[in-house]
Amino acid sequence: MELRAPIIYVVEPYGGSVRRHNPTLPLVYWDDAAVTRGDGIFETLLVRDGKVINLQRHLDRFRSSAHLLELPDPGNAQWAQATKEAVAEWSEHSESDATCVWTYTRGRESTGIPSAWLTLRGVNQKVLEQRRDGVKVMTAPRGYSITTTLPGVGKAEAKPAPWLTVGAKTLNYAANMAALRYARSKGLDDVIYLDPDSERILEGATSTVITVRKGKKLRTPYAAGDILPGTTQAAVFRYAETKGWRCKAKDMPVERLLDAESVWLVSSVRVATRVTAVDGVELPAPDNEDEIRKLINRALAAES
Amino acid sequence: MELRAPIIYVVEPYGGSVRRHNPTLPLVYWDDAAVTRGDGIFETLLVRDGKVINLQRHLDRFRSSAHLLELPDPGNAQWAQATKEAVAEWSEHSESDATCVWTYTRGRESTGIPSAWLTLRGVNQKVLEQRRDGVKVMTAPRGYSITTTLPGVGKAEAKPAPWLTVGAKTLNYAANMAALRYARSKGLDDVIYLDPDSERILEGATSTVITVRKGKKLRTPYAAGDILPGTTQAAVFRYAETKGWRCKAKDMPVERLLDAESVWLVSSVRVATRVTAVDGVELPAPDNEDEIRKLINRALAAES
Repeated sequence: MELRAPIIYVVEPYGGSVRRHNPTLPLVYWDDAAVTRGDGIFETLLVRDGKVINLQRHLDRFRSSAHLLELPDPGNAQWAQATKEAVAEWSEHSESDATCVWTYTRGRESTGIPSAWLTLRGVNQKVLEQRRDGVKVMTAPRGYSITTTLPGVGKAEAKPAPWLTVGAKTLNYAANMAALRYARSKGLDDVIYLDPDSERILEGATSTVITVRKGKKLRTPYAAGDILPGTTQAAVFRYAETKGWRCKAKDMPVERLLDAESVWLVSSVRVATRVTAVDGVELPAPDNEDEIRKLINRALAAES
Repeated sequence: MELRAPIIYVVEPYGGSVRRHNPTLPLVYWDDAAVTRGDGIFETLLVRDGKVINLQRHLDRFRSSAHLLELPDPGNAQWAQATKEAVAEWSEHSESDATCVWTYTRGRESTGIPSAWLTLRGVNQKVLEQRRDGVKVMTAPRGYSITTTLPGVGKAEAKPAPWLTVGAKTLNYAANMAALRYARSKGLDDVIYLDPDSERILEGATSTVITVRKGKKLRTPYAAGDILPGTTQAAVFRYAETKGWRCKAKDMPVERLLDAESVWLVSSVRVATRVTAVDGVELPAPDNEDEIRKLINRALAAES
């Protein structure tokens, strides 16, 4: 277990300086939009072997989230640089995996200037256990559906209301956290959301679903605007294709969880977590469990 | 305009002490669930004439929100007491209306103890203008619908997924803020949400809708689980009934905004804001505009 204090860097917006923040002191002001409205975005990155993994995809999604929320462009260079410095500092004392979180908010009401910082710390013990032991999940309707029929918008151009910021990784995660609490209250570890109407597979509460199918096939739910595009899944598909896997995003009914060779929840820090049971139905370990786990880890290493 | 520094009191959970916080210093730690997940609740209260208005309804909703999010009960007495102290402090220097916000979060990941504080400050200039001049609104589908058909739940017991925390006033307001930005980009002031399927009226982005109809009738949309119950609306209906108004919550199609004598957005601090235009259609001032405004203000005074 990692008990070291986290490393915190405040990233001044608009290309300003990066400065260290003492983690034993409060960081965020009373009138910051992150605190008053959950109005901001974040990214979670894996730090491994002294390097940050999948940096470019996280940068891209971070900027895309900012754009969707109409926040000023958070920029590229200073985040890459601040992360590099924090990782170097971390690596002086630890060879363990670490979690780096970038946060970027609409800022203080009294200044109107976005707030930004990154934190870096050891990976949570629970996550390490789930990597090793897998997770038992429940499927659940997400509980709401995104309406794409705005008035005056033809069917062909149907799209979600602009204020839903669909596809952005925002700080509004209370519902996801509540779904996880609900799962835990039933003795389970995680949730896979289903579309309430069609029961097609969407995503995990904080992860992307990948199924492994016979004949070296990887599948992930097609991101139709109601799924956050996964940076880990993208890295895995890209790498796996070079190794002879056929990878495809497609609509999948819930049954695909049961007839797959194996089902995985992938995310930056949990990396590869095998689903060992769905709604009480056990999913036995496949013969190639180690191979899949290696494939996913190598895909990430290729992005460092 | 009120330029005085806000008053901030940190409210220690579990009946602990209340202490002053210097507003020029950061308040919230990097690992507080409010900052990382928007995982917390809030209430906004009006302070007028040295008193906090509608205290009991806010206490009730605050505790109900906490219950829906499975947060420990925030209690009653210490919030009432801390608010009273802050109001007394405010009133030493100002006779103007003030805004008091209570915030209660799941707390720091490293301690697991909820964080709680209140802030008190002068009412925003924009709000004062809207009270006086009214607001131009656009109607808009909320952009999503709450699904009440959970698997294994019969139609009769249909209810939203428990993790949506429907009816709780949570910090997840990013979509509401985005809807307001969208309205402002069109030169408008506010949004009234409609149910995407039936086009019935739901609520404002941060307010409750009340329509005034001929024959001394007040109407508000029936809160069918997808509307936050309004504390101001409840106070207004209670008081108005004692003055001979007939008040009812009911389903209302969007047309009711156009054929009402007047339409109002009510909330704790904006109090009574008349809607002067809906989707570009002007709503002329009714003869009894002053009477309605007085009615609403008196209803709140009766709750102090």
